[in-house]
Amino acid sequence: MVKVGVVGATGYTGEELVEVLLKNPDVEITSLSAIVDKEKPFSNMYPRFGKKISVVCGNLDVEKVSESADIVFLALPHTVSMKFAPLFLSKGKRVIDLSADYRLPEKTYKKWYATEHSDAANLEKAVYGLPELNRNSIRTARLIANPGCYPTSVILALMPIAGAIAESGLDVIADSKSGATGAGRKAAIALSFGEIDSNFKCYKANAHQHMPEMEHILSGSSGKEFKLNFTPHLVPMRRGILSTIYVKHKGLPDAESIHKLYGDKYENEPFVRVRPLGELPEIKDVSGTNFCDIGLTSAGGMLVIVSVIDNLLKGASGQAMQNMNIMCGLDEGQGLV
Amino acid sequence: MVKVGVVGATGYTGEELVEVLLKNPDVEITSLSAIVDKEKPFSNMYPRFGKKISVVCGNLDVEKVSESADIVFLALPHTVSMKFAPLFLSKGKRVIDLSADYRLPEKTYKKWYATEHSDAANLEKAVYGLPELNRNSIRTARLIANPGCYPTSVILALMPIAGAIAESGLDVIADSKSGATGAGRKAAIALSFGEIDSNFKCYKANAHQHMPEMEHILSGSSGKEFKLNFTPHLVPMRRGILSTIYVKHKGLPDAESIHKLYGDKYENEPFVRVRPLGELPEIKDVSGTNFCDIGLTSAGGMLVIVSVIDNLLKGASGQAMQNMNIMCGLDEGQGLV
Amino acid sequence: MVKVGVVGATGYTGEELVEVLLKNPDVEITSLSAIVDKEKPFSNMYPRFGKKISVVCGNLDVEKVSESADIVFLALPHTVSMKFAPLFLSKGKRVIDLSADYRLPEKTYKKWYATEHSDAANLEKAVYGLPELNRNSIRTARLIANPGCYPTSVILALMPIAGAIAESGLDVIADSKSGATGAGRKAAIALSFGEIDSNFKCYKANAHQHMPEMEHILSGSSGKEFKLNFTPHLVPMRRGILSTIYVKHKGLPDAESIHKLYGDKYENEPFVRVRPLGELPEIKDVSGTNFCDIGLTSAGGMLVIVSVIDNLLKGASGQAMQNMNIMCGLDEGQGLV
Amino acid sequence: MVKVGVVGATGYTGEELVEVLLKNPDVEITSLSAIVDKEKPFSNMYPRFGKKISVVCGNLDVEKVSESADIVFLALPHTVSMKFAPLFLSKGKRVIDLSADYRLPEKTYKKWYATEHSDAANLEKAVYGLPELNRNSIRTARLIANPGCYPTSVILALMPIAGAIAESGLDVIADSKSGATGAGRKAAIALSFGEIDSNFKCYKANAHQHMPEMEHILSGSSGKEFKLNFTPHLVPMRRGILSTIYVKHKGLPDAESIHKLYGDKYENEPFVRVRPLGELPEIKDVSGTNFCDIGLTSAGGMLVIVSVIDNLLKGASGQAMQNMNIMCGLDEGQGLV
Repeated sequence: MVKVGVVGATGYTGEELVEVLLKNPDVEITSLSAIVDKEKPFSNMYPRFGKKISVVCGNLDVEKVSESADIVFLALPHTVSMKFAPLFLSKGKRVIDLSADYRLPEKTYKKWYATEHSDAANLEKAVYGLPELNRNSIRTARLIANPGCYPTSVILALMPIAGAIAESGLDVIADSKSGATGAGRKAAIALSFGEIDSNFKCYKANAHQHMPEMEHILSGSSGKEFKLNFTPHLVPMRRGILSTIYVKHKGLPDAESIHKLYGDKYENEPFVRVRPLGELPEIKDVSGTNFCDIGLTSAGGMLVIVSVIDNLLKGASGQAMQNMNIMCGLDEGQGLV
Repeated sequence: MVKVGVVGATGYTGEELVEVLLKNPDVEITSLSAIVDKEKPFSNMYPRFGKKISVVCGNLDVEKVSESADIVFLALPHTVSMKFAPLFLSKGKRVIDLSADYRLPEKTYKKWYATEHSDAANLEKAVYGLPELNRNSIRTARLIANPGCYPTSVILALMPIAGAIAESGLDVIADSKSGATGAGRKAAIALSFGEIDSNFKCYKANAHQHMPEMEHILSGSSGKEFKLNFTPHLVPMRRGILSTIYVKHKGLPDAESIHKLYGDKYENEPFVRVRPLGELPEIKDVSGTNFCDIGLTSAGGMLVIVSVIDNLLKGASGQAMQNMNIMCGLDEGQGLV
Repeated sequence: MVKVGVVGATGYTGEELVEVLLKNPDVEITSLSAIVDKEKPFSNMYPRFGKKISVVCGNLDVEKVSESADIVFLALPHTVSMKFAPLFLSKGKRVIDLSADYRLPEKTYKKWYATEHSDAANLEKAVYGLPELNRNSIRTARLIANPGCYPTSVILALMPIAGAIAESGLDVIADSKSGATGAGRKAAIALSFGEIDSNFKCYKANAHQHMPEMEHILSGSSGKEFKLNFTPHLVPMRRGILSTIYVKHKGLPDAESIHKLYGDKYENEPFVRVRPLGELPEIKDVSGTNFCDIGLTSAGGMLVIVSVIDNLLKGASGQAMQNMNIMCGLDEGQGLV
Repeated sequence: MVKVGVVGATGYTGEELVEVLLKNPDVEITSLSAIVDKEKPFSNMYPRFGKKISVVCGNLDVEKVSESADIVFLALPHTVSMKFAPLFLSKGKRVIDLSADYRLPEKTYKKWYATEHSDAANLEKAVYGLPELNRNSIRTARLIANPGCYPTSVILALMPIAGAIAESGLDVIADSKSGATGAGRKAAIALSFGEIDSNFKCYKANAHQHMPEMEHILSGSSGKEFKLNFTPHLVPMRRGILSTIYVKHKGLPDAESIHKLYGDKYENEPFVRVRPLGELPEIKDVSGTNFCDIGLTSAGGMLVIVSVIDNLLKGASGQAMQNMNIMCGLDEGQGLV
């Protein structure tokens, strides 16, 4: 039985984490914490967990969490995680961090998150928790930097040809569209139903902090400096990310060959599915699942790659538990299918 | 040219008020105010008004607003309006208040809004701004209490038979469903897209502060003490209210007669439409309009009355301008059709 | 291993059935059928099942389905199920029918579904598949009439006090609100996004075919003739039903006693949760689950009962598998939590 | 008084056309036609027009429409319009066609719409009804090819720098996102609420029939062969198109200069608004209006242009009436602001 604690249990990713952990027969949730006025059973805060879990959710007590848990999930905002991760690590706990705090080199982090990194030592040792890239290192990792939602959708979509693209010096444009839970559970007029429903918008055009994460990981995976342009959008739906990626189809292998490359690469991956050439996936194909579906098409001299994930699952909590399964030697898909 | 000022211009009703006032050829908006960090053109705050209005929106200055405006609209939260209405009235301005502050007798107000009324003198003189009920008094009113959104939908739906119902002592149940803008533009987790989309909920069952407003007005209009049960719900849509009203069809005239009563009552009303007997209206029939549509059906011994309005128009800002048109001797529907 | 066939696999309930059956470790799906142009793997029709199931979906062949399955689910439109159920029953298969065909007495069926019942013999033997009412008979049933979605939400909400209500002769009003998948997967302008989004409507006021089902079952469960008024509404969301039920709180026990009655009745039920008195459930509390949550409040002399279910799960396919679990001696919640 | 007939009045663009025509004080709607089972008042088909219009909608009778109308709007599917336009033109009527039938050169039409053009003579004389491009020719045109929705959003966004782009040989990627009414009012499972809500998808990647329309018009306006890549997406909202356009910012003037170019170009346009540099428009800024809002930003070496329109107004019926206003010497914005 794997004993786990969830820190930051009341946000969307925290709540989703509880949801998937409860489906995992080898997991016991030993603690739930968050910033709360008064501690009470988690199922009183979120009645959908009634008759499913009796754990009380209170303010964070590092000692107590550490006593009962082997693995600690941090579902905290960035810049907050790096304050707590070292405390749990120093107590010998394995940590899976869902924030951005351990995903980037120190300098890049500072540039994009506008703050010094306060835990550079652990940053260096952290493993980027994308199983399709780092399954082996994940097994033995003490600290997992769970990938960002947009990066998961874009990296998986590009990984098989990132090298070829970088070699050809082609421009890449990733136009991503996300549901509203991606922004977290927060009191903000901009996140209110009245502002988002029947609306659609573009934000942080080519200037989003997930862009350097994509470039960093794809450069590492391809062994070449990889650059791309990334622009996110907000869709009036709760969950899901669809990324439409454009690369000029010139100097690259033909469409069939590229498609075969993807098929081979992901054939044995439990949570990546490649569609027949020319068929593009939709959000509903992966909503509520831990899958990333990828479609490819080539038309008018342009290669178009479309990937979809559920931002709260493969883009956050599902992938976090997938990492936990790997770290603990469990079946990788346990509780996720 | 009617010169108007809008106080509280940045909320949903304030914004909608600007929208309709701009369509009225006899209106000049002379001031817009709200609680703002820094004054700036209203069209910078809400770009949909670009190339349409150049008025600057700043913090409220009662003197300045009064200098330029003949009519002042208060699109403020309840308990706030009653602080400002007397200031404008004492300067000879006519006031249309969209809050609940002048709709109820003093005692009832205190009970349901949990505070003393600080402007009882004006409260007594205020005219309830439902044109279908009070058109004549509206013409000369100095202070209009613009009806609540739920009350508008329920009162118009019941007015023609409220007397007969009260006489028969029948129970009335009004089950209303509202879009999310009814709660105003606010930073609150409960109002966020992630909480409201794909969700539906009931709140304040038989305990909403709009219930005494309905009872008070229908008692007045029918000349009998009128009681009802009212329960509101939140629908995942931006605007619109649909009220389903149930009355046991026993002791009342037959369906055709009741339908005729409604037809006669509302035949010449510019903004109330009665459907053929048995046909029920939907939100989309009135969305974006100032109409209230009413349908009636009788089945299984139950009379079911359904009414729909756009909560921001007939339920707030549209009706406010309808009142202004009446007060100023303009065509009642000007700018509204 | 329970071997099951799903007939009508391409509708919303059929698809959801496949979803839950795949989560049940003791189930093997041996056949999927529907009206199709060309048989192909189910995961080609619905790519969300890729890497999860390889069964081919073809047109119905009663012989072949019967050869491989022990239990046959009929996810068919009403009037169609009664053509196929007898064929499977005569081959010794146990049948779980999700249509309305076996839920009502013959005469009532004829009246509300406007057609003669063609399988009266089996109709008499069918067991109404509401585990909270008929768990024992379900165990040995050959033919299950799986409850309708609206009836599940209303019957569970009323069952504990149906007797007291009938005795007091009180009027009951059930105002239900359903998501759009309740109407099935069909090509119809009225079901299109452009008509339903940002809209809300009432339909079949006090004249819906699910009303006699509620009355029939509640009469049976309470041993008294039970009458109610039922009016459904269409909410712009995909799934979920919320029923708001009104009963005059006069002649009934006090609120605490009624609440205790509910608590006692459902305490050991795996899929019914009763909220603390005064707290009302929302769709999101049960969306994606097999739970029915019930809340009670009493205000202004009115008892208000609110229940919520996911129409595709507790209201259809989840409950169908719950019945299957009971019939097969499996853990009742298997694959459902 | 301009007398107009609307052919195809029951679709989304037809209905919206009636909506705006009713707001135009110089217009009289003399006939409404569509394919209908039985002719009846338009306000019986669409109750939102009750108390607003009494015209009966019947099947098309070319003679009768021509007798009463000066201008005929064709809100018909492509390939159907070209059957009727010549009939009205030969009777001396001026025609505004909202379909794609008169927008492309004959050969291009044949290639992308997979059919011969049956009215090549008029095709040559048709004026592309984009006022910002062709205001002068629109004044005297007999036949207007009203622009497509996607093309309107993309052409206006690119027109000011199309020449510079073509000269530099830069690749252009237009990633557009549209609400569901863009597909018309049709009975189709793919258009149903259950399929579109909470979903998002890409379709016809770089292969949509609106792409050649954009290329054709931008080539004409810039005097150079203009090529682009265009991929549309379906957003779970009723109305609105947002296009995100990417051009490598290299070889082009600096951002301030480009922004000034746009400002100058559109300064006096009544329905195009250019945002301050770096500020991007959202759907809600133009929803329910005839405006096209354009924002520009430059980051990471990429120029990103975002434009938004309401697909049913500036993308169809609003622009059609704008054209009519120009053709008839009325104020161009009449009925539209």
